[in-house]
Amino acid sequence: MPSKKNMNPEIVVVGSVAVDTIKTPWEKRANILGGSASYACAAASFFAPVGMVGVVGTDFPRRYRKLYESFGIDLAGLQSLPGKTFRWTGVYEKNMDVRRTICTELNVFASFHPDLPPTYRRAPYLFLANIAPDLQLHVLSQIEKPRFVIADTMDLWINTAREPLKELIRHVDLLTLNESEAHHLTGKAGLVKAAVRLLGMGPRYVLIKKGEHGSALFSDDGVFLLPAFPLLDVKDPTGAGDTFAGGLIGWMAERNRTDEITLRNAMLYGSVVASFGVEDFSLDRLAKLTRKEIETRAAEFRRMLALRA
Amino acid sequence: MPSKKNMNPEIVVVGSVAVDTIKTPWEKRANILGGSASYACAAASFFAPVGMVGVVGTDFPRRYRKLYESFGIDLAGLQSLPGKTFRWTGVYEKNMDVRRTICTELNVFASFHPDLPPTYRRAPYLFLANIAPDLQLHVLSQIEKPRFVIADTMDLWINTAREPLKELIRHVDLLTLNESEAHHLTGKAGLVKAAVRLLGMGPRYVLIKKGEHGSALFSDDGVFLLPAFPLLDVKDPTGAGDTFAGGLIGWMAERNRTDEITLRNAMLYGSVVASFGVEDFSLDRLAKLTRKEIETRAAEFRRMLALRA
Repeated sequence: MPSKKNMNPEIVVVGSVAVDTIKTPWEKRANILGGSASYACAAASFFAPVGMVGVVGTDFPRRYRKLYESFGIDLAGLQSLPGKTFRWTGVYEKNMDVRRTICTELNVFASFHPDLPPTYRRAPYLFLANIAPDLQLHVLSQIEKPRFVIADTMDLWINTAREPLKELIRHVDLLTLNESEAHHLTGKAGLVKAAVRLLGMGPRYVLIKKGEHGSALFSDDGVFLLPAFPLLDVKDPTGAGDTFAGGLIGWMAERNRTDEITLRNAMLYGSVVASFGVEDFSLDRLAKLTRKEIETRAAEFRRMLALRA
Repeated sequence: MPSKKNMNPEIVVVGSVAVDTIKTPWEKRANILGGSASYACAAASFFAPVGMVGVVGTDFPRRYRKLYESFGIDLAGLQSLPGKTFRWTGVYEKNMDVRRTICTELNVFASFHPDLPPTYRRAPYLFLANIAPDLQLHVLSQIEKPRFVIADTMDLWINTAREPLKELIRHVDLLTLNESEAHHLTGKAGLVKAAVRLLGMGPRYVLIKKGEHGSALFSDDGVFLLPAFPLLDVKDPTGAGDTFAGGLIGWMAERNRTDEITLRNAMLYGSVVASFGVEDFSLDRLAKLTRKEIETRAAEFRRMLALRA
């Protein structure tokens, strides 16, 4: 459990806070804590002080707030509005490789207007998780001197908010998205071609997530390829991408470096934290995770990638 | 073009020699040179003297034999029998990710009995490409002191020749197969679980090929993960797995080392040679390939995998 508290956040994460109901081929869990901000903040908290920007309803269970606090997550940016918390219900089919959304209730999320507390505005590291691009831009505009900004997105915004999304992409350091979204946004079929097109839209880095097949980082200087850590048992893959991004930006913030070699190693750490996260539902595994376990698995992962003795 | 000739082979490859007709979404080529032995021998020839064990019919074009010779491939083990050469017709659909076999004519391959010329029997490196397991065993039995034996297989033999296949697996150093075949052979769903089960069947190493998602090497000591070299244009993926294995065993033979670090680097070289091979149909790209191009791309690939400056 992380211990850094009572400091202004070095990392600000904006995203969803959700109450999820999830069904896998083996198990069903109702009303568990989810949302991109939950996963990303929990992952980042292992490395540096992190502040959450999000919204919950008055029904948001007190124990979930306590859980955030146990990670040392700063909640000054977590608004509470009259109404119900955002809810998502999803089902994983076959070998967990197909996910179907059964139901989405926006609830208080529909009127979310992310205004940052003053203590957040000097944070150098920013993760704009997958929400509407105009909200992502609004959060970005409140950060005084961002040092490294990561943005995630999804098909919905590519379809419904392409112009604000393109505006956002011009202002971020790293755009992260999955392979099909990269193809969708660029109209390009090959991974390399899509990434080159995305780099032309403004960001220094494009990070393409390929789930169990790892990730690829593209920049003008070249490509970095990272396989996924091989998993024995995946209990719930929900939030893996946000856990990855949270761990990544956390590790960068801890080092306070933004060069490419740091970023490559940050991807390795993000992947390691995500590999733990999927071992249980919600934040259950992350809540028990120690920095020592992270370091042990990171060292193991390095050995799996080594071309020298 | 490789230059090592007039030496006894250090590598022996047994596999198919085929006349292929291939249709991709963009192009069709009829009666081109194919077969696992063609791809594997061509790839291995860049690194060490290689001898081919295979069979052709009397219709086998003289220019294809000349092409083999231009790679420096020893053809003492290439039998010529009355009748037609093995023929395969295949179609690639969508983005080349679905392959359908339209037609297979075994022809002389049906009566193939691979007897090795005396000059082959002291070869230390052996690649048993995908043919019937009893033929693979028969070839293996003729090698006096094999130092490193790789075997490939396919679903057909898992279904129709499971017992000889299991006997073969007990006697090889490295078993290579694709992900779905690993699941099929072991009945295990996860990659790691399938690999562990396969290791229990005898080989020191299990190499699982995942195509555009790279490959994973399993041994009792751990796992090595290698992404695929990112490709801009794939013209014809036929033979990529055999080109990979041929380059791999070639690089090992050149070094004459069989330790795991050598094997990991050999996988990198196999992947590089395969990345060239798919840039054109048949052996067309490999016929123009130089060792310098291989080294340049290998260095580029290493930079794509580096976690240190």
